[in-house]
Amino acid sequence: MTDNANSMWGGRFAAGPDAIMEAINASIGFDRRLAAQDIEGSRAHAAMLASTGIIEPSDAEAIREGLLTVLSEIETGTFQFSTALEDIHMNVEARLKDLIGEPAGRLHTGRSRNDQVALDFRMWVRDQCDAAIVGIEALQKALLVQAEAGADWVMPGFTHLQTAQPVTWGHHMMAYVEMLGRDASRFADARARMNESPLGAAALAGTSFPIDREMTATALGFDRPAANSLDAVADRDFALEFLSASTICAMHLSRFAEELVIWSSAQFRFVTMSDRFSTGSSIMPQKKNPDAAELVRAKIGRIMGATVGLFTVMKGLPLTYSKDMQEDKEQVFDAADSLMLALAAMEGMVGDITANVDPLRAAAASGFSTATDLADWLVREAGLPFRDAHHVTGRLVALAEAEGCDLPDLTLDQMKSAHGAITSSVFDVLGVDNSVASRTSYGGTAPDQVRAQIKRWKERLA
Amino acid sequence: MTDNANSMWGGRFAAGPDAIMEAINASIGFDRRLAAQDIEGSRAHAAMLASTGIIEPSDAEAIREGLLTVLSEIETGTFQFSTALEDIHMNVEARLKDLIGEPAGRLHTGRSRNDQVALDFRMWVRDQCDAAIVGIEALQKALLVQAEAGADWVMPGFTHLQTAQPVTWGHHMMAYVEMLGRDASRFADARARMNESPLGAAALAGTSFPIDREMTATALGFDRPAANSLDAVADRDFALEFLSASTICAMHLSRFAEELVIWSSAQFRFVTMSDRFSTGSSIMPQKKNPDAAELVRAKIGRIMGATVGLFTVMKGLPLTYSKDMQEDKEQVFDAADSLMLALAAMEGMVGDITANVDPLRAAAASGFSTATDLADWLVREAGLPFRDAHHVTGRLVALAEAEGCDLPDLTLDQMKSAHGAITSSVFDVLGVDNSVASRTSYGGTAPDQVRAQIKRWKERLA
Amino acid sequence: MTDNANSMWGGRFAAGPDAIMEAINASIGFDRRLAAQDIEGSRAHAAMLASTGIIEPSDAEAIREGLLTVLSEIETGTFQFSTALEDIHMNVEARLKDLIGEPAGRLHTGRSRNDQVALDFRMWVRDQCDAAIVGIEALQKALLVQAEAGADWVMPGFTHLQTAQPVTWGHHMMAYVEMLGRDASRFADARARMNESPLGAAALAGTSFPIDREMTATALGFDRPAANSLDAVADRDFALEFLSASTICAMHLSRFAEELVIWSSAQFRFVTMSDRFSTGSSIMPQKKNPDAAELVRAKIGRIMGATVGLFTVMKGLPLTYSKDMQEDKEQVFDAADSLMLALAAMEGMVGDITANVDPLRAAAASGFSTATDLADWLVREAGLPFRDAHHVTGRLVALAEAEGCDLPDLTLDQMKSAHGAITSSVFDVLGVDNSVASRTSYGGTAPDQVRAQIKRWKERLA
Amino acid sequence: MTDNANSMWGGRFAAGPDAIMEAINASIGFDRRLAAQDIEGSRAHAAMLASTGIIEPSDAEAIREGLLTVLSEIETGTFQFSTALEDIHMNVEARLKDLIGEPAGRLHTGRSRNDQVALDFRMWVRDQCDAAIVGIEALQKALLVQAEAGADWVMPGFTHLQTAQPVTWGHHMMAYVEMLGRDASRFADARARMNESPLGAAALAGTSFPIDREMTATALGFDRPAANSLDAVADRDFALEFLSASTICAMHLSRFAEELVIWSSAQFRFVTMSDRFSTGSSIMPQKKNPDAAELVRAKIGRIMGATVGLFTVMKGLPLTYSKDMQEDKEQVFDAADSLMLALAAMEGMVGDITANVDPLRAAAASGFSTATDLADWLVREAGLPFRDAHHVTGRLVALAEAEGCDLPDLTLDQMKSAHGAITSSVFDVLGVDNSVASRTSYGGTAPDQVRAQIKRWKERLA
Repeated sequence: MTDNANSMWGGRFAAGPDAIMEAINASIGFDRRLAAQDIEGSRAHAAMLASTGIIEPSDAEAIREGLLTVLSEIETGTFQFSTALEDIHMNVEARLKDLIGEPAGRLHTGRSRNDQVALDFRMWVRDQCDAAIVGIEALQKALLVQAEAGADWVMPGFTHLQTAQPVTWGHHMMAYVEMLGRDASRFADARARMNESPLGAAALAGTSFPIDREMTATALGFDRPAANSLDAVADRDFALEFLSASTICAMHLSRFAEELVIWSSAQFRFVTMSDRFSTGSSIMPQKKNPDAAELVRAKIGRIMGATVGLFTVMKGLPLTYSKDMQEDKEQVFDAADSLMLALAAMEGMVGDITANVDPLRAAAASGFSTATDLADWLVREAGLPFRDAHHVTGRLVALAEAEGCDLPDLTLDQMKSAHGAITSSVFDVLGVDNSVASRTSYGGTAPDQVRAQIKRWKERLA
Repeated sequence: MTDNANSMWGGRFAAGPDAIMEAINASIGFDRRLAAQDIEGSRAHAAMLASTGIIEPSDAEAIREGLLTVLSEIETGTFQFSTALEDIHMNVEARLKDLIGEPAGRLHTGRSRNDQVALDFRMWVRDQCDAAIVGIEALQKALLVQAEAGADWVMPGFTHLQTAQPVTWGHHMMAYVEMLGRDASRFADARARMNESPLGAAALAGTSFPIDREMTATALGFDRPAANSLDAVADRDFALEFLSASTICAMHLSRFAEELVIWSSAQFRFVTMSDRFSTGSSIMPQKKNPDAAELVRAKIGRIMGATVGLFTVMKGLPLTYSKDMQEDKEQVFDAADSLMLALAAMEGMVGDITANVDPLRAAAASGFSTATDLADWLVREAGLPFRDAHHVTGRLVALAEAEGCDLPDLTLDQMKSAHGAITSSVFDVLGVDNSVASRTSYGGTAPDQVRAQIKRWKERLA
Repeated sequence: MTDNANSMWGGRFAAGPDAIMEAINASIGFDRRLAAQDIEGSRAHAAMLASTGIIEPSDAEAIREGLLTVLSEIETGTFQFSTALEDIHMNVEARLKDLIGEPAGRLHTGRSRNDQVALDFRMWVRDQCDAAIVGIEALQKALLVQAEAGADWVMPGFTHLQTAQPVTWGHHMMAYVEMLGRDASRFADARARMNESPLGAAALAGTSFPIDREMTATALGFDRPAANSLDAVADRDFALEFLSASTICAMHLSRFAEELVIWSSAQFRFVTMSDRFSTGSSIMPQKKNPDAAELVRAKIGRIMGATVGLFTVMKGLPLTYSKDMQEDKEQVFDAADSLMLALAAMEGMVGDITANVDPLRAAAASGFSTATDLADWLVREAGLPFRDAHHVTGRLVALAEAEGCDLPDLTLDQMKSAHGAITSSVFDVLGVDNSVASRTSYGGTAPDQVRAQIKRWKERLA
Repeated sequence: MTDNANSMWGGRFAAGPDAIMEAINASIGFDRRLAAQDIEGSRAHAAMLASTGIIEPSDAEAIREGLLTVLSEIETGTFQFSTALEDIHMNVEARLKDLIGEPAGRLHTGRSRNDQVALDFRMWVRDQCDAAIVGIEALQKALLVQAEAGADWVMPGFTHLQTAQPVTWGHHMMAYVEMLGRDASRFADARARMNESPLGAAALAGTSFPIDREMTATALGFDRPAANSLDAVADRDFALEFLSASTICAMHLSRFAEELVIWSSAQFRFVTMSDRFSTGSSIMPQKKNPDAAELVRAKIGRIMGATVGLFTVMKGLPLTYSKDMQEDKEQVFDAADSLMLALAAMEGMVGDITANVDPLRAAAASGFSTATDLADWLVREAGLPFRDAHHVTGRLVALAEAEGCDLPDLTLDQMKSAHGAITSSVFDVLGVDNSVASRTSYGGTAPDQVRAQIKRWKERLA
């Protein structure tokens, strides 16, 4: 083909686009990632054009075979991408023409680059929804393994990074399983909502060719064709919803990553990170930097940045397609790559974490962490009003503090000195094991409750 | 009650919180908006406590009646809010104690402020999902009225704010109906996902009281209780998903608002805005400023700002509750108010817009906007390859330009001079009415297609 | 005045703005915060109008006196704000007319609401730059007190939240003094850049009245009048730069706040927060929640949210004034309030913090934190290449680990067993005090270096 | 060198970092852009080490020469980058060791990767500040050419995209010159603030080697060494301030780009974009898509996205270095590239724009745009109060509207019928040329004022 074969507008422009224009305008540097989707979409379009009699079956067959050759060239790295051909669509079509000649010119019948790019990108994002769900579920499974092992390992439940009440390691792990479950369902909802085919919207108005949009929609795995051609080419909701869901998921990962960083500090020693996901110092053997956790913690930055970026691009754009929208892809590519990597890294870390059971338990027991259990016992068993129960508890905590012991170490007489109604059964709720065992309300930290949730999730993820 | 009744931590702190601490810490200035939810939640909790035998039925009844009195005082404006009591929960509880005395102290059994605020806020956001859907559907209905009136009014379909092909006013309106339909479904999905009750998670670990979380969940309209108590108090996904969905919706509104601003310029004159939603100049009668449209266009700023704000707050927070999370409410309140106002303003504007049919039509006809129709005819009827058809079309456009006429004004002989296969039937696709009528592909701009979509949506919204 | 006195555009609009329009359009609910600036600007404008002979001196005097009365009414709370009068400018002007009658109508000569609001808001933001600097310097002074007290208190210097090398408390405090110093200079630069008067730009084109913009600029403390009237009314850079500087400052505060939260955990116990800035539990005496630190940590959320919000509003706005720009104020008001509060809260916290010297020192000494000192000694004193020095150090650390002691506890013979060139002077660099004392490079952690920086800053802030 | 030569932590880790860790951890894929800065910094460091006697002059010389060889290899593309070597620092150092052997091991004396990367990145950002200023000034010069040509071409001055008053093309161009002038000064301020050398902060605490930080600071063009070593390695303000300034600049470009898109619409026809920066349609000759303007308009998205991204990363990070901070570079690289490209594209567009003088003038004259001039004349020359003048003007506008003419077309008698004090001199201010000529206030739209500003800027930029 000739040098300016890509100059679709032919002789209209006296001056060729210069270097700056090419730099700012060409998308082939990044949209080549859509090659597989572009070819899949074109193959479905060609089959439909033949089925509806718009082109000859033999032409469609030549197109479909030729496109497979192009795909193969791209996959094997022999394809020559050309910046002068601007984008992936023109690169593929030009190569197709090289391969099969004149019938290539019939492929673009009844469609336009506007619906073509909307289709390709939507299919790519749809795949990423699926990939996110796979990554999430893998991480959930790794968490379930940790949760099952430590369904009754006691650790501090924190508020304000201060020990509030004892909980279990399994319970803590399962909190993230819940968050990730919402993440997966968010990607599933986004996928269902975006699963309408823009193909056939053409430039923006639809077409006068007797195309069959249902046929291409079905062939490409869509639930239906998009119902308004203007919207179909102007819409980038699917990308924005994917980005929004990704940001929420990345926020969850940032919370867990923060915990891992704090937990692996010398002061906490709650966990030991594996060497695989840490770096260290050649001369300071205890120094084990949780690099992977820190990087996962940071990923929300670029993912939310991409989200803000694309919203800003879309703000105030008149219908239908404006070139601004070309800025959609790099943001989504980067966010998707970052999310998948963060999920994989977190899965790897979770699989490798060693929970240090003794420090966890010691921390859970400190600070009279079962004082609320004592107060609750007074309400529940001795019938005290809530506020009175707190005063009695306060006195006993002060006594224990004065004695230099913990609440379960007080004698029954000492207990009774604070309130005569206390009986020896109070000791059944003191101590961290008793405390966690007593939290049997649905979703509570009692090991049986935790195990019930683990079972539910294992079945769900099976 | 005493001055430091709110000092839950009693004598622990020698120094009272000073003015700065009060300024940064107290939330009653804004969380009073949760009063109705707080009281509804407490009433359900009290009923459950009685039903499970945790408190006496008579106490529960006193609490439930007392809370109705408090609600009434708040609704009628006689309630005295106290900053010293920090938040809505303490304000309500303190007043309840004034009203009913000692039984008030039993209300807080088996719960904590952590699950209480999570409940209240979640119920508030859930209501906003419903409100958003109501606002969206009202706007959709206003758009349907415009679409029905102008299902065949011709206007330019733009790409790059350049006329690309003729479309219809109805088709353009329906593009926004589609976008808003996705918005509504996004709020519905968010609502369903958040519809789990955190009540009973207590401080974070669940409780040893034999509470019935299913009962309160059902009473408060939730689908089920949240399955992990740590997650239940640490989670703000519901707010983030609401904000994300709101930002997408606000983006749609910003696009339409931008169009209204451009369309009401003296240069476009596509629409006339009503006086109700414009301001003007006392001495320049044509100047009619589209203030409401501009303000709607701007609202994405604060809504996305709120979204970024809350994500930033949540980034990297260890479980479970941290005081940082108190920054969640103002962001969501402001975003929700802004979204509802923007929807209402847009509904009002759409109801009042006058489409200026003649300028719309003239603009649609300019710039040889049916050249693609001619090219498509040559492919479809004369069997020319796509690229050849374009060359023939180019020659005819140049001829029309030279003649100072539009394509339909050329004679058949002039047509034939460019390509012998052209017949008089070509005129059936030229001219803007023929052009739009020919775009009969599903979702295309042909009036029948547009009317079919209007019908579908009217049924759906009925 | 009559009900529709505010309807500047008189009888142009048949329908009055309805409730929605009023709700979205009126700004008096928030722009009343500009009252003092509005009146100061109007008084300067009136004086200039008289000085240039545009209005009578007696009218100017009446206006200037009347405005003082209005200001007094606003300050004492007797002013009746009217939503029907939309904004602060109309509220003030209408009241002025009530007070002084006809001359009030001459105040608006040679100006417009466009330059008036640009002036008012710019002056408000300018004041906030000053306030930010005051707040920053107060915090710096509080940090200097801490730094001076603990110039030689040893604590761990962290990377990755892992002890890397011993540093001093004073050094750590001074790191924040440096950050805050950049913050202050950023606000100073922003202030200087925004210090051009928009007054006299009028609606957008300047005016034909012989106004003296230099005179009003000088009277209002500006360096000069803005040089382009279109830019003067279209510009909101001053707000965006203030917001950007605020976000950077809030980021610094979030880092220190995070440290305070971690340091006050039971596991770290590096600091004890005062009761004034904490909350606690009535029954868990050790639990002391660092609420104020958490809230300061969170403030970057709403401040960055406001920044993103205003950027989004301004994106793609054609010149000059568009109503979108009315969304500028609430964002900036909230961000400024949040920043000032966060600075004050942090200043209060820093003043109250108790550094727990022993845990800090113990943490600094753990993990062979002076291994790099040993390696450096080997390079510096024994002439070993860097890599060789590391291997020798590694062997000695392993030996100490096996012996269950720290590096300074090894004997000279043990040292020599690893490398014969080691002499007893090696002990001068081991141990945390020796280590920090040895870091005498400019800006290093040696107490003398720290004290030199404290001295420099005390002079600078004097 | 051996395969795991980069494993600085030697045998500490049993398992090698696996593929995920490598993918998330390695930075050489992007930080190779810092190669020139890294080598320049190392060469200065080596010279200082020799000058202070820390290493031998011959070693320093070998290092400095070897580094030049490495630089040359990188510049000519023969350098083999290794992902196993993680980052640019290790890649360069490893190659240096290949080239010069043992002395390479002395280069790292008295520094660390923490201050090294802080130095490299800071120098890179500093260069970008300079590049931004160059790009801005080039664009300003292009605008000055347009302004000079059209200092008296009349066009509409818009508020709300509605004609408000006539202004001149030159005046409008100069508004952007002012904005860009602030942008340049913002980059200059940022550059001055960041111009402190972190080199010598070492890992975080400074060093015990007798280094001379002043010497390296001077050699590398810094004003001084950074005064606190903890801050020096923990600080990323320089990047955030660069990003913030870039976002403001990109906002300005987005406003102008929006104007160009609107102005080049068929409805406005204010400008004709050159073919170089547009794309078109092969068959619709009038369609000229302003692609470059749209892409420039969009760039604020990714630039603000990068800003949000890095702020989010830095939020809440404890001192000093955390691995999260590795996420700083890609954001800044992308934002800087985008800004420079947008500036260049806008410069190119501005150079090529054809202002369509007649449509501009016609638009300026429509809508009784000089009604305010008439009102001002009545105040100024006939002494009417402002509000009375408006009523008289309103009557004359209504009369002109009824007559189907513009204000200057009314007769003196018609004028007098509205107010007896009107004289023929009123015609001196009516008509768009008279109107703009009369706006002689400083910074106003009068051509002489515009030319004065052009002159001032030409001198400033000379």
